[in-house]
Amino acid sequence: EILELKRSNLSCQEKGIKIKKEINDVYKQVDDIAGTLAKHEKESSHLQSRLKQILTKEKQIDNNIIKELTDDLEQIKMNVKRSKGLFTPETGSIFVRLFLGQVNVKHLRENEKFRLKTEYEKFKKKTNPQFIIFVVLLLLYPHSSFVTTSWQIWLLYYYITLALRENILLVNGSSIKPWWIMHHYLSIAGSLTNLLFPFSEAFTYFLPQVTYFSGCQGLVQILTNRYQQGRLYKLVAMGKANIIDVTGESEGWNNDPGWTPSAMFLLPFLLFVQFFQLYNSFSFFYFAYQRDGNVEWQVYMCGLIFLLLGFGNLFTTISVYYQKWKN
Amino acid sequence: EILELKRSNLSCQEKGIKIKKEINDVYKQVDDIAGTLAKHEKESSHLQSRLKQILTKEKQIDNNIIKELTDDLEQIKMNVKRSKGLFTPETGSIFVRLFLGQVNVKHLRENEKFRLKTEYEKFKKKTNPQFIIFVVLLLLYPHSSFVTTSWQIWLLYYYITLALRENILLVNGSSIKPWWIMHHYLSIAGSLTNLLFPFSEAFTYFLPQVTYFSGCQGLVQILTNRYQQGRLYKLVAMGKANIIDVTGESEGWNNDPGWTPSAMFLLPFLLFVQFFQLYNSFSFFYFAYQRDGNVEWQVYMCGLIFLLLGFGNLFTTISVYYQKWKN
Ligand SMILES: CC(C)(COP(=O)(O)OP(=O)(O)OC[C@H]1O[C@@H](n2cnc3c(N)ncnc32)[C@H](O)[C@@H]1OP(=O)(O)O)[C@@H](O)C(=O)NCCC(=O)NCCS
Ligand SMILES: CC(C)(COP(=O)(O)OP(=O)(O)OC[C@H]1O[C@@H](n2cnc3c(N)ncnc32)[C@H](O)[C@@H]1OP(=O)(O)O)[C@@H](O)C(=O)NCCC(=O)NCCS
Repeated sequence: EILELKRSNLSCQEKGIKIKKEINDVYKQVDDIAGTLAKHEKESSHLQSRLKQILTKEKQIDNNIIKELTDDLEQIKMNVKRSKGLFTPETGSIFVRLFLGQVNVKHLRENEKFRLKTEYEKFKKKTNPQFIIFVVLLLLYPHSSFVTTSWQIWLLYYYITLALRENILLVNGSSIKPWWIMHHYLSIAGSLTNLLFPFSEAFTYFLPQVTYFSGCQGLVQILTNRYQQGRLYKLVAMGKANIIDVTGESEGWNNDPGWTPSAMFLLPFLLFVQFFQLYNSFSFFYFAYQRDGNVEWQVYMCGLIFLLLGFGNLFTTISVYYQKWKN
Repeated sequence: EILELKRSNLSCQEKGIKIKKEINDVYKQVDDIAGTLAKHEKESSHLQSRLKQILTKEKQIDNNIIKELTDDLEQIKMNVKRSKGLFTPETGSIFVRLFLGQVNVKHLRENEKFRLKTEYEKFKKKTNPQFIIFVVLLLLYPHSSFVTTSWQIWLLYYYITLALRENILLVNGSSIKPWWIMHHYLSIAGSLTNLLFPFSEAFTYFLPQVTYFSGCQGLVQILTNRYQQGRLYKLVAMGKANIIDVTGESEGWNNDPGWTPSAMFLLPFLLFVQFFQLYNSFSFFYFAYQRDGNVEWQVYMCGLIFLLLGFGNLFTTISVYYQKWKN
C-alpha cells in the first residue's frame, strides 16, 4: 500500500512540474495578449487622429466610408478595452496600493471573482449586527470616551475594508458605481475627523444626533444588504451556466434587475437616510454660524462631509433608479 | 490600415477566447492536483497510524523494513506539504480574512510572488522618513492632541498594512518567522491602547520616553530595511535563473545569507532597541506600583505589550543569529 501511495505521489509530483510549466506557458500567452492589446489601443488612437486629419484636409470623400471607418475604430477600441479588462494585470486604485502595494489583484478565474463578491456581501451581513450593537452602546454610555473612540476605530476598520474590497471588485469586473467607493472614502475621512475631535462642547452637543443617525443608517443598511443578497442569489442561479460557458465572452455581472418591487421598497428608506445626512450637515454649519465661527475645525469638516455624502448619495441613487425605470 | 488592424484585432480576440479556455483547463488541473494532494495527505496519515498499530502488535518484524517504511511516509508527507504550498489556493491567516474576506491570495506566477516582496520592502523604505517626521513633530508639539492622535492613527495604518502584506507573503512562500507578524499584531494592539488612552497624568508622563523610544526604533528600522534590501538585491541577482527555471522545484526564497558582516553590524542596534522595550515595560509597571495600582488600565496594557515585544524580539533575534552562526 505504501509503495502504491509512493508511486502515486511521484506521478503527482511529475504532474505538478508539468502543470507549473503549463501555468507559465499560459501566463506567457496572457502577457502576449496584454501586449498585443496595448499595441492595438495605441494604433487605433493613432488611426483615429489620422482619420480626423484626412477629414479636415479633403472634404470630397464619401461620407459613408468615413462613417464606416469611424464606427469600425470605435468597435475595435471597445473590444480592446473589454479584453484588457479581462487579461491585463492591475492593482486598481491608489487605495489598494496604499494597503497591499502595487501588486496584481485581478483574478483570472471566474469562481475566484465570484468569491470576492459573495465574501463582500457576507462581510456586510456579518457586520450589520455589530454596527447596531455599537449604536446601542453609544445610547447607553454617551459619556464614555472609551465607547465613542472604540466606535470610531471600528468604523475606520469597517469602511477601510469595504473600500478595499470594492476596489478589488471593480478591477475584477463589477459594475459598482465609483460614487459608492467615494462614499466610503468620505466615511473614512469622517471617522478620522471624529477620532481627532476633542471632547468639547460641540462634540457632546452633536453626539446624540449623530448616534440617532447611525442607528437609522444601520437599519437601512440591513435592508440594503438583504436586497443585494437577493440580487446575488438570482445571479448565482443564472450564473451557473455563465461560469461554465467560458468560451463565450461573459459580460461581467452586468445584469441590472431593473425596476423590481424590492428595489422600489428600498427607495423611501434610502431617501430618508440621505435627507438625514443633509440635515446633519445643516446642523453642523448652523452650530458654527450661531457661535460666529468660534468652533473647532472638526465642526466644519463634519458639516462638509455630511453635505457631500448627502448630495452624492441622493444624486447617484436617483440616477440609478432613473436608469432602472428606463430599462 | 484600418482593415489590417481590424483583422489583427479579431485574431487577437480569438486568441483571447482560446486562452480563456486554456486558463480554465490549467486551473482545472490545478484543482485536480490540489484534490489529489489532499487525498495523499489523508492516506499517508492513515498509513502512518496503521504502521504504528502493526508495530505495537507484532514486535518480531524486521526493524529495517519498518524504518524504511516510516522514512518513506515522512518523505511523502513532506512532498505533499510542499506541493500543497504551491498549488492549493489559500487565504492564509484570519487577519487577511478580516480585511479581504476568505479569498485566494496565493499567486501562481513567480514574478507576481516576487513583486509582493519588492513592494513590501519598498513600502518600508518609503514610510521610514514619515516615521521619523512624526517623531520630530511629537518632540516639537508634545501637548498637541492632534499630533499624538494622528501619530497613533498613522501607526495603526502602518502596522496593519505590514501585517497584511506579511501574511500574504507567508502564503506565497516567504520564510518570514511567525513572530515578526505577531510583533505587528502586538504593535496594532499598542496603537489601539494609545488611541484609547485619555490625556491623563500617566499619558503626559510617558509621552517623552515613548517618543525617544520611537525615535530610536525609527532609526534602527532604517538600518534593518537597508539590510533586508541588500538581501533582496542579492536574491534578484541569483534569482533570475531561478525564475526562468520553472521545471525544477524552486525552493522558495529560502537562502539564508548566514553570518554576514552586515547582519553582525545590525545586531547591537537591534539589541539596544529590544532592551529599551524591556525598560519601557518596567517603567510602566513601576509607575503603576508607585501609585498603588491607582492608574488607568492602559498603563498595564502598555507595560504588558512592551514586555511581550521585548522578550519575543530578543528571543527570536537570538535564535535567528544562532541559526546563522551554525550555518
Ligand atoms: C440604489 C441601490 C439600491 C441600487 O442597487 P443595485 O440595483 O444593485 O444597483 P446597480 O445595478 O447599479 O448595481 C451595480 C453593481 O454595484 C453594486 N452596488 C450598488 N450599490 C452599491 C453600494 N451602495 N455599495 C456597494 N455595492 C453597490 C451592485 O452590487 C452591483 O454589483 P455587481 O456589478 O458586482 O453585481 C444601491 O446602489 C444602494 O443601496 N444605494 C444606497 C446606498 C446609500 O445611500 N447608503 C446611504 C446610507 S445607508
Ligand atoms: C534578525 C534579522 C536582521 C534577520 O534577518 P534575516 O537575515 O533576513 O533573517 P531570516 O533569514 O530568518 O529571514 C527569513 C525571511 O524573513 C524575512 N524577515 C526577517 N525578519 C523580518 C522582519 N523583522 N520583518 C519582516 N520580515 C522579516 C526575511 O526578509 C526573509 O524573507 P524571505 O523568506 O521572503 O526572503 C531580522 O529578523 C530583523 O530585522 N529582526 C529585528 C526586528 C526587530 O527586532 N525590530 C524591533 C524594533 S526595530
